[in-house]
Amino acid sequence: MAGQENFPSIVGVFPCQVQWGDCDPAGIIFYPTYFRWMDAATWAFMDAVGYGPKRMRAEMRSMPLVAADCQFLFPAEQGDRCEVRSRIARFGGKSFGVAHEVVRADGTALAKGSETRVWARHADGPGSPIKGEVIAEEFKALFRAR
Amino acid sequence: MAGQENFPSIVGVFPCQVQWGDCDPAGIIFYPTYFRWMDAATWAFMDAVGYGPKRMRAEMRSMPLVAADCQFLFPAEQGDRCEVRSRIARFGGKSFGVAHEVVRADGTALAKGSETRVWARHADGPGSPIKGEVIAEEFKALFRAR
Amino acid sequence: MAGQENFPSIVGVFPCQVQWGDCDPAGIIFYPTYFRWMDAATWAFMDAVGYGPKRMRAEMRSMPLVAADCQFLFPAEQGDRCEVRSRIARFGGKSFGVAHEVVRADGTALAKGSETRVWARHADGPGSPIKGEVIAEEFKALFRAR
Amino acid sequence: MAGQENFPSIVGVFPCQVQWGDCDPAGIIFYPTYFRWMDAATWAFMDAVGYGPKRMRAEMRSMPLVAADCQFLFPAEQGDRCEVRSRIARFGGKSFGVAHEVVRADGTALAKGSETRVWARHADGPGSPIKGEVIAEEFKALFRAR
Repeated sequence: MAGQENFPSIVGVFPCQVQWGDCDPAGIIFYPTYFRWMDAATWAFMDAVGYGPKRMRAEMRSMPLVAADCQFLFPAEQGDRCEVRSRIARFGGKSFGVAHEVVRADGTALAKGSETRVWARHADGPGSPIKGEVIAEEFKALFRAR
Repeated sequence: MAGQENFPSIVGVFPCQVQWGDCDPAGIIFYPTYFRWMDAATWAFMDAVGYGPKRMRAEMRSMPLVAADCQFLFPAEQGDRCEVRSRIARFGGKSFGVAHEVVRADGTALAKGSETRVWARHADGPGSPIKGEVIAEEFKALFRAR
Repeated sequence: MAGQENFPSIVGVFPCQVQWGDCDPAGIIFYPTYFRWMDAATWAFMDAVGYGPKRMRAEMRSMPLVAADCQFLFPAEQGDRCEVRSRIARFGGKSFGVAHEVVRADGTALAKGSETRVWARHADGPGSPIKGEVIAEEFKALFRAR
Repeated sequence: MAGQENFPSIVGVFPCQVQWGDCDPAGIIFYPTYFRWMDAATWAFMDAVGYGPKRMRAEMRSMPLVAADCQFLFPAEQGDRCEVRSRIARFGGKSFGVAHEVVRADGTALAKGSETRVWARHADGPGSPIKGEVIAEEFKALFRAR
């Protein structure tokens, strides 16, 4: 994904910590935890530019995943304090890519991943099917680094 | 909860298996996993009497929790094949209790728990607030052991 | 459990937030999430008195669950900022009870639960069976409110 | 990953079902669930060729992740019965790739993913650091389609 980045993005920061229950019998983080964090980090990133959960719900917006990937660079252990640093990697017509880095408090990079999502909406009220929407320039501008 | 049981219930069976990611660094099951199983077992029990996910959605039904508890009797390990045996412990006016036992394939009881739930409905369509409904005798009859 | 409380405990505070992935199709928190939080809150409470994950590992300590319960008082939604307030409800010979309250940032009580745990140790090194240990007065003193 | 496949693999099958708690407020599967399934599917695949959890533990083996990715092709809903079909995509010196397909009971492909893992071992007993091991030809042969 790194090679496809074409958007000068601000960086969202989502703090998190490895819990006992996030770890497996090998004593390190169970890898789907990173994807849980990446998902939460994207929601926090949206919140930071004005699209918090309440607004997303009120506008019946949704951002379903097309793809996700992650490289695991260094094993995380219980108690490790981390942050997920997120930025928009690219904006497509109705989709966008988010690049995430998970960094431990001491600066060690633990993981590096990305998500591709559709910017969508429940067209006919809650519970109705969702449809992708063309991403407005005003929306993109919210994420542009100055 | 056992002492409050007053309903002669059929028994639902939900098969499950302890996965690597369900275990913690102590090498045994991470306890919230039991509650995940109990929740899934209740849904499977409903399904068994004709209230599967599709019908529940179509009728905008919901069964939010009031309380849940579990006793952990014997540590479960990765690979253990189990089943959750569920029965209605009691029916109240708008609520009901489900008693669950988690039993390993060799007959060892691993855990014993219960859930108290409200039988509810989204009164004004999807997304609207839910309200408890009086549980009909016809519904209770579906769970009655003959 | 409340009725059995007999220890004047300090209060541990574990901040948390309801994430998108913590919620179910009803749009509210999936209840096993509360038990994940309670587990993490107990670990954080131990950390606060000097028994952090590193020390627990080094001393090969473990604190397996005997029982857990929770009452769900008010539905939590995505984005809700909460804290789990934990205190020692009682100390037994080799076991202890932790009482937890989950409170939303605006003061609303969301849930109230408890855990009963054994204070244990891998007697013969990592991977060996665990044995309960008599809880020392020095350990209890760490949690005593002054 | 598909382009790098170079091993004629047997196919492992891991049955699973979308549970209420696996879904998010959009009413569809929360995507990290797919990675939980892929992890469990790899363990089941190992089990199928003789490397079950007990043996893995006894031999102090581990198979930490280097990378994982998934494409989400079709939204899964509560109750959907699925299977993960897994095969070895390639064997490296000390690592291997597993390709997974998640297919719904009616044949609909829901997701397609892969994992890259190291074949490793706790060299000095449980709890000691892990080291990658050269993958033996005998091990590879266990997965070779005839």
